[in-house]
Amino acid sequence: MLVSRYLRLILKDICTHSCLHHFLLEFLGTALFLSASLSAVLMLPLAAGKPGRDLMSAGNQSDLSHPAPPLSPVSPAGPFQVALVFGLSIAMAAVSVGGDVHINPSVTIAMALTLRLRLWRAALYVIGQLLGGVASASLLLGLSRDLTPVLNQVSSGVHLHQAVALETLATLQLVLVVLATVSIPLPGMASPLLIGLAVSLGHLVAVRATGCGMNPARSFGPAVITLNFNNHWVFWAGPVLGACLAAGLNNLLLRPRRSGNWWA
Amino acid sequence: MLVSRYLRLILKDICTHSCLHHFLLEFLGTALFLSASLSAVLMLPLAAGKPGRDLMSAGNQSDLSHPAPPLSPVSPAGPFQVALVFGLSIAMAAVSVGGDVHINPSVTIAMALTLRLRLWRAALYVIGQLLGGVASASLLLGLSRDLTPVLNQVSSGVHLHQAVALETLATLQLVLVVLATVSIPLPGMASPLLIGLAVSLGHLVAVRATGCGMNPARSFGPAVITLNFNNHWVFWAGPVLGACLAAGLNNLLLRPRRSGNWWA
Amino acid sequence: MLVSRYLRLILKDICTHSCLHHFLLEFLGTALFLSASLSAVLMLPLAAGKPGRDLMSAGNQSDLSHPAPPLSPVSPAGPFQVALVFGLSIAMAAVSVGGDVHINPSVTIAMALTLRLRLWRAALYVIGQLLGGVASASLLLGLSRDLTPVLNQVSSGVHLHQAVALETLATLQLVLVVLATVSIPLPGMASPLLIGLAVSLGHLVAVRATGCGMNPARSFGPAVITLNFNNHWVFWAGPVLGACLAAGLNNLLLRPRRSGNWWA
Amino acid sequence: MLVSRYLRLILKDICTHSCLHHFLLEFLGTALFLSASLSAVLMLPLAAGKPGRDLMSAGNQSDLSHPAPPLSPVSPAGPFQVALVFGLSIAMAAVSVGGDVHINPSVTIAMALTLRLRLWRAALYVIGQLLGGVASASLLLGLSRDLTPVLNQVSSGVHLHQAVALETLATLQLVLVVLATVSIPLPGMASPLLIGLAVSLGHLVAVRATGCGMNPARSFGPAVITLNFNNHWVFWAGPVLGACLAAGLNNLLLRPRRSGNWWA
Repeated sequence: MLVSRYLRLILKDICTHSCLHHFLLEFLGTALFLSASLSAVLMLPLAAGKPGRDLMSAGNQSDLSHPAPPLSPVSPAGPFQVALVFGLSIAMAAVSVGGDVHINPSVTIAMALTLRLRLWRAALYVIGQLLGGVASASLLLGLSRDLTPVLNQVSSGVHLHQAVALETLATLQLVLVVLATVSIPLPGMASPLLIGLAVSLGHLVAVRATGCGMNPARSFGPAVITLNFNNHWVFWAGPVLGACLAAGLNNLLLRPRRSGNWWA
Repeated sequence: MLVSRYLRLILKDICTHSCLHHFLLEFLGTALFLSASLSAVLMLPLAAGKPGRDLMSAGNQSDLSHPAPPLSPVSPAGPFQVALVFGLSIAMAAVSVGGDVHINPSVTIAMALTLRLRLWRAALYVIGQLLGGVASASLLLGLSRDLTPVLNQVSSGVHLHQAVALETLATLQLVLVVLATVSIPLPGMASPLLIGLAVSLGHLVAVRATGCGMNPARSFGPAVITLNFNNHWVFWAGPVLGACLAAGLNNLLLRPRRSGNWWA
Repeated sequence: MLVSRYLRLILKDICTHSCLHHFLLEFLGTALFLSASLSAVLMLPLAAGKPGRDLMSAGNQSDLSHPAPPLSPVSPAGPFQVALVFGLSIAMAAVSVGGDVHINPSVTIAMALTLRLRLWRAALYVIGQLLGGVASASLLLGLSRDLTPVLNQVSSGVHLHQAVALETLATLQLVLVVLATVSIPLPGMASPLLIGLAVSLGHLVAVRATGCGMNPARSFGPAVITLNFNNHWVFWAGPVLGACLAAGLNNLLLRPRRSGNWWA
Repeated sequence: MLVSRYLRLILKDICTHSCLHHFLLEFLGTALFLSASLSAVLMLPLAAGKPGRDLMSAGNQSDLSHPAPPLSPVSPAGPFQVALVFGLSIAMAAVSVGGDVHINPSVTIAMALTLRLRLWRAALYVIGQLLGGVASASLLLGLSRDLTPVLNQVSSGVHLHQAVALETLATLQLVLVVLATVSIPLPGMASPLLIGLAVSLGHLVAVRATGCGMNPARSFGPAVITLNFNNHWVFWAGPVLGACLAAGLNNLLLRPRRSGNWWA
C-alpha cells in the first residue's frame, strides 16, 4: 500500500547515520544540560519553597504532600542564580555537543513548523530529548532522594492562565532568538551564547510563577521521577504555543521565507 | 503648491514596503522588549517601594494614592536584577527582530540628528515604538491590575534636575554606544549584545533615582495604562537631551562626519 | 642647543592633529567612564562604610572626620555590583570613544614601557586622563555634596603593604590583558569587552581592601575634589608597579618583542 | 639499551625551546589564575564556614582544628560570586598568557588522552601547573595567615561519593567545552571566554559541596601550604575521572577522530 511504502521510506530516512547520530546528540545534550543545571539548582542555597534549596537534608524531611510552593519571600538572588545556571548550562551543553543540537522540544517543533526539519525526525529528536531528561533526573537521585526542588510547579497564587501566558512568552522569545541565529551566519560559538542568554531571560520572566519550564524535556524528567504530573500540561501547552507563535511570527512577519513542504 | 507636493513626496516615501516593514518591526521589537522586561520586573521579588515587587497580591492592595516611592533601603540585588532584565530583553528583542531596529525613540532621534534617517521616517518609527510600549503595558494587565511597580517615577528625595541629569547621562552613553556600533563593521549579533550592556549600565546609573527611563517608549506605555503622568516630562527631556548630546559629541568630536542633509 | 632642538621636535610631534585628538579622546573617555561608574556607585544602595551608599542624604550627614572606613560586614552583593559597574563603564566608554584609548594612566605607562608610545605623548595622555577624572568628579557634586563613598581609601585593618600588593595584582592582570589584546588581531569590539572583564576581576580582588583604584585617574579625581590625599600614594604606587611588572612579564617572558627605542 | 635510548629521545624533545616555554607559560598562567582568584575569594565577605570569608582577622582566630565546614546557610550571593571570580580569573589568565595554555591538569590529561599531546610533555605541564599552584598559595600567606577559606574541602553532610560525582560532573562539562573549542576554528579570544563560563558553571554545580576543585592544581596549592590533605584524593579522582569521561565521550561519540599514537 501507499501507507506502508511511506512508512518504509520514513524508516529508511531515520535509519541513516546522520539521523541516528543526531538522535544520540539530542539525548546526550539534554542529559548533560539537565545534569549540570538541575544538580546546581539542587545544590544552591535558595529561599524557602522555591526550586533549589536544602538538598542534603531534603531526603530526611518528611514532606508527605507535594503542595504547590507558596509565593513566599524568595531571596533576591534566587531567580537570578537559577537563570544563570540554566543559561550557562544550555550554552555549555550546546558548545560541547555541537552547535546544531536543539536540546529543547519546543525548538524542535519550531524547526519542523518552519520546514527546516522533517516531521518524523522531529518526533525522534523529541523522544531523545525526553529520554535525556529522564536519564539526568534519575541520576539526580544519587544527590537527593527528594527532587521536589527541581520540579516545575505552578506557584500558589498564580492562575493557570497566567502560568501558561508566562511560559508562552518565555518560550516565544527563546525560539525567536533560535530562529534568528539559524537564519544569519554567525561567528563560531556565538549562537550557543545567545541562546544561553535567551534561556536566562526566560527564567527571569517565569521562574517565580512556574519555576520556568520553557523546555518540556526539562519539566518532564523530574515529573517522571517524582511521579508528580500536577498541572504538568502547563509545561507542554505554554512552550508549544510559544514555539508556534514564534514560528509564525518569524516566517510571516520578521523573515518571510519561500514556501517549502514537510515531506521533501 | 510646494507644501502639498512635498507632503505627497513624503507620503510616497513612507508608503514603501521597506518603510512600513521597518515601522512594523519597531512596533514588534518594542512590544517584545517591554513584554519580557516589564513582566520580569513585575515578577521579581524586589524590595519595598521599588519597581518590581509583590506582583500577585498587588491588585489586592488598596493603594489609594500613587506617591513617589521613597528611597527606602532597597535590597542590594534589586538594581542589578532590573539592569540585567532590561539589558537582556533589549538584546534578545534586537536579535529576534533583526539588528537594525532602534526600539528606543532616543536612538531614533539620534539617528535622525546624525543624518542617518529622514525626519518623517523617524517620526513614524517613534509612533511605532510608542504603540508597542502601550500594547505591551496593556498585556501586563493580565498579570497584575496594578502596574505601579513598573512605572517610571522620580524617587522622593531626588530633585528633578538630578533625575533629568541621571537620565541624560544614562541615555548619553547608550546612544554613544549605538552610534559607535553603527559606524564600525562588527561580527553578526555583536551590536545587540553591546547595546544590551549599555542598557544595563544605564539602569545601574539611574534605576534608584527614577526607575531608569532612558527610553521614552518604555516610560510612556505604563504611564498611559495607569494614567499617571506625574513628572512624565522628565522621561522625555532626559533621553532627548542625552540623544542630542550624544549625536553632537559623536559627529563633532569622536567621529567627525562629512555633511549630509535631512531631505536627501 | 641640543635640548631646545629636542624640545622643539617634541612640541612639533605633540602639536599634530592625531596627538591632540587622542588627548581629547583620553579626556572624554575618562570623563565618560568615571561619570557613569562613580554616579552609579553613588546611587547603589550598598552596605555601611563601603564605597557607594546613602548618597542623597549623604550631604546632610555631619561626617566631621574622614576616617578610613572599617572592614564592616559588607552586603554580599556589594563588591560584585561595584565590579560590574566599573567593568561595564570602562567597556562602554572604550566602545563609545573608540577602541584605542587607554583611559587609565597605568595602561599608558605600560604602553610607553613596551615602546608602543613615545614618552611625551604618554605624559600628555596621562594629563588628559587626570583632567577627565577631576572633571567627572566635580560633576558628581551635583548629585551629592559628599563624595567620600567614591573615594579610594585603604580600609582599616588592611596594612599598607597589603593594599599596595592587591592594587599591584589587580593592575598586573589588567595590563597583561590589555597588552594581549593589543598584540593579537581581534574581531571588532572584542578588546573593550575583555578589558571590562579584567577591570571587573580587579575590583573583585581589591575592592574590599582599598575600594580598588587600579587606575590613578579614577583615584585622583575624587581625591582632588574632597582634598583627601590620605594614603593617596598607594593608588599611584600599586598601579604603576603593576604596569611595570606587566610590561616586563609581557615583553620578556610571554611575548618577547624585537627591540625598539623610545625616541624613534 | 632501548630504554635509555627512548629516555634520551624524550629528554631531547623536552629540552626544546617550545616545550620549556610552554612549561613556563603553564607555571605563569596557573600562578596568575590562582593569585587573582584565591585572593579575591579570601577578600570577599561570604557567609560562615564557606570558602572566602573573614580574611583579615583570620590569622588572629584560634582555629585549632580544621574540621570540614558545615553546610550552614550560605549567603545566597556566595556561590555566584565564587563562580564569577574563578570564571573571570581563568579567562583573564588564558587571555594574558595566550590561548593555548591548559592551566588545569585535568585539561592536560584530556589532551594527552585524545592524542593531542605527548605523555612526557603532559607530565611536565602538570608539574608546572602544580608549582604554579603552590607558588600562588604561598603568596597568599602575605594576605592572611589562615588559608582555610580557600582550601577545597568536602562539606560535612556530603558523602564522599557525592563529592566525587559532583567533581566529575563539573570537570566533565569543562573538559568537553575545552575539547570543543580546540576542534573548531574560533574568532580570537573566544575560547578563553567559553572556558571561563564553563568554569563558572562548574563552580555553581560543586562549590557548596566541595568548594569546587575541578582543577587539581587549584586544590593542591592551598593543601600543601596548610598541610591539610584531608580527603585530598577527592580533588584528584573527580577531575581525572571527568577528564577521562570527556575524552572518551568526545572522541567516540561527539567527534570521532582518526587514530593517532602517543609516541609520534
